[in-house]
Amino acid sequence: MTQAVRHDSMRARNLGVVLGEVRRSGPITRAALAEITGLTKTTVSKMVGDLLGAGMVAESGALRDGERGRPGTAVGLSGHRVAALGLEINVDYLSACVVDLTLSVRLRRTQAVDNQAASPVETLAHLQELAHRAVDEARSEGLAIAGSALAVPGPVDDGLLHAAPNLGWHDVRVGDLLDFPVAVENEANLAALGELWFGSGPSDFLHVSGEIGVGAGLVLGGDLFRGARGLAGELGHVIVSPDGPACRCGGRGCLEQYAGQEALLRAAGLDGVPALVAALQAGEPGALRACERAGRALGVALTSAVHLMDPGTVVLGGIFAPLFPWIHGPAGETMIARLARMRHAVPELTVSRLGGDAASLGAAGQVIHRIIADPGAHLAATTARTPPGPR
Amino acid sequence: MTQAVRHDSMRARNLGVVLGEVRRSGPITRAALAEITGLTKTTVSKMVGDLLGAGMVAESGALRDGERGRPGTAVGLSGHRVAALGLEINVDYLSACVVDLTLSVRLRRTQAVDNQAASPVETLAHLQELAHRAVDEARSEGLAIAGSALAVPGPVDDGLLHAAPNLGWHDVRVGDLLDFPVAVENEANLAALGELWFGSGPSDFLHVSGEIGVGAGLVLGGDLFRGARGLAGELGHVIVSPDGPACRCGGRGCLEQYAGQEALLRAAGLDGVPALVAALQAGEPGALRACERAGRALGVALTSAVHLMDPGTVVLGGIFAPLFPWIHGPAGETMIARLARMRHAVPELTVSRLGGDAASLGAAGQVIHRIIADPGAHLAATTARTPPGPR
Repeated sequence: MTQAVRHDSMRARNLGVVLGEVRRSGPITRAALAEITGLTKTTVSKMVGDLLGAGMVAESGALRDGERGRPGTAVGLSGHRVAALGLEINVDYLSACVVDLTLSVRLRRTQAVDNQAASPVETLAHLQELAHRAVDEARSEGLAIAGSALAVPGPVDDGLLHAAPNLGWHDVRVGDLLDFPVAVENEANLAALGELWFGSGPSDFLHVSGEIGVGAGLVLGGDLFRGARGLAGELGHVIVSPDGPACRCGGRGCLEQYAGQEALLRAAGLDGVPALVAALQAGEPGALRACERAGRALGVALTSAVHLMDPGTVVLGGIFAPLFPWIHGPAGETMIARLARMRHAVPELTVSRLGGDAASLGAAGQVIHRIIADPGAHLAATTARTPPGPR
Repeated sequence: MTQAVRHDSMRARNLGVVLGEVRRSGPITRAALAEITGLTKTTVSKMVGDLLGAGMVAESGALRDGERGRPGTAVGLSGHRVAALGLEINVDYLSACVVDLTLSVRLRRTQAVDNQAASPVETLAHLQELAHRAVDEARSEGLAIAGSALAVPGPVDDGLLHAAPNLGWHDVRVGDLLDFPVAVENEANLAALGELWFGSGPSDFLHVSGEIGVGAGLVLGGDLFRGARGLAGELGHVIVSPDGPACRCGGRGCLEQYAGQEALLRAAGLDGVPALVAALQAGEPGALRACERAGRALGVALTSAVHLMDPGTVVLGGIFAPLFPWIHGPAGETMIARLARMRHAVPELTVSRLGGDAASLGAAGQVIHRIIADPGAHLAATTARTPPGPR
């Protein structure tokens, strides 16, 4: 390592330390930042200057400096310039959102599209349109998109979407079909992070995304559990009954075949989640039976998941949120009957406060968290005038 | 924090840094230790002196000191004094082992006992005898037991064994029944760590302990995954078939009811694992059918586990090790049929190299790892003449 390289990497690390402290403790004066971080005041001032220039922090009014009583100008994280684009492709919708550096949601758009009937090229063209419109809107508010992430309904390894059985897609390098760089990640993982950052829930939970597919993301101590290859959390293919109905994954009796959106609507003889909710509210026996059956299957799969992963609580999201009043009884009873003797506390079933766009929120939040962890990379990209987001 | 407390915690941290470096790079000179750790030579010499005094490191011959060419006396980890006692209670055996600071196994003892017919008090009295004999033998080799850990066949939360359904035990504070302090932990977790430290396997795997109960421990990047309450890995109660045979856990159709030792022997009509292996070698159809059925059930439960936890590989231990030639076919085929379309690499099934005492080895290894991570605590205990192991 040359002296210059070592200096750069030290500077990058210190920038992350300073911005992290501003996020944790801001508004905060430069003097207090120097005291907490152990960096010199000169170094802190230089870094705060760079962060101000990039619009990542902003000065607020003067703040008295604790013990010593000298007044100083405080800096805090700024939500006025740097932002991230979160995107999601799901089986029957696309969504986009823009989140600023303070994790405030500035824009959310969801569009119903039947992607089951579409090729990856068509779907990604649609998504690109939606993304560009969102970026234009954000720009009109003075925001600059510093990065993008995309949630997809299937396991992703190093940018490659292995298989999205409910889309009929296999081995698609999704990012290559867009005209801007994007990080691609499994939607259940990102929905779990969305719940963590935007749902104001606990920091230990298994988030279940009920869509046409059923995915889950385990958050432990505020971190996403990803497994050895980033493929963990495929709750939809946990086996409920080994000789059950064939699943598009190649297996049989997977949870999706009992509690996925299509299976549920088929069992209820209805053609949409709003219709199902209306039927449940009207007390229609067919709809109630379908939810009871889905809830019991969900309870069986969650029993296996609790035995293996030991989550703190279980948060039901996606279609399980509107269906929660009818699902949580049979699911919870099944879990208690099978788990109570083995553990004092059977994880509670709770409902997600986020809507169907939890995954796109998680995607945008992940970009923001990466920028805050390594602001040097963002500054370098901005200086080089090659912003990483869509133009 | 007072000045003195801050100094002590700094010293403890630095002792850990120095001993960790000795373990990683030893034999190594004091000068090289100072260079790598950034501590002064005086500090390093004082710490090496303390570690020598406690028998945690030993001096080997003179070593030339890299670039500068000055000879110095090298120090390395010593296996001659500090050791740990690992213990295991399982349904049909007890085991004890002693491991020294270099992770060399110095002694292993396993004793067949029917603990199913015994109360916690009786079993722990037996175990205490076994432990004292092991400690006496170790002492005669000049070893001093610095700590003990105990593996038990059920979920443990903060020293409390919640439930060991196969022993018929509930809410037992196991450590209180022994006359020496002991850390208590789930046997499947410790068996996984045993596999990691003593089995020379990979660093990402799900270790399956086949006993009367079936447990699993997930190791990711060399760390044990414990879940939110340390109760993760209960593979034996993953549901294979929701309406299957009743299980002692209160559930139905758990893996244990198909692939646990008792279920397997019952299905084969035999009364011990050696008899089953002999029957399989002789090609007896009943024994082959029993293993085929157990293997398929194991494949179903492992499919769910792979979907949820995404392990690198799967290591079969306990009774699944001698049965591996007959189990791995049906288990592996079931997994491939159900997993191959969802992920490029279906985790390979491999066999554990350790015997039935993987968990007691893991228990002793965990004590050693804790001592190396915080040698200060060990030094303080030794100085206060209250060694934490059995006397």
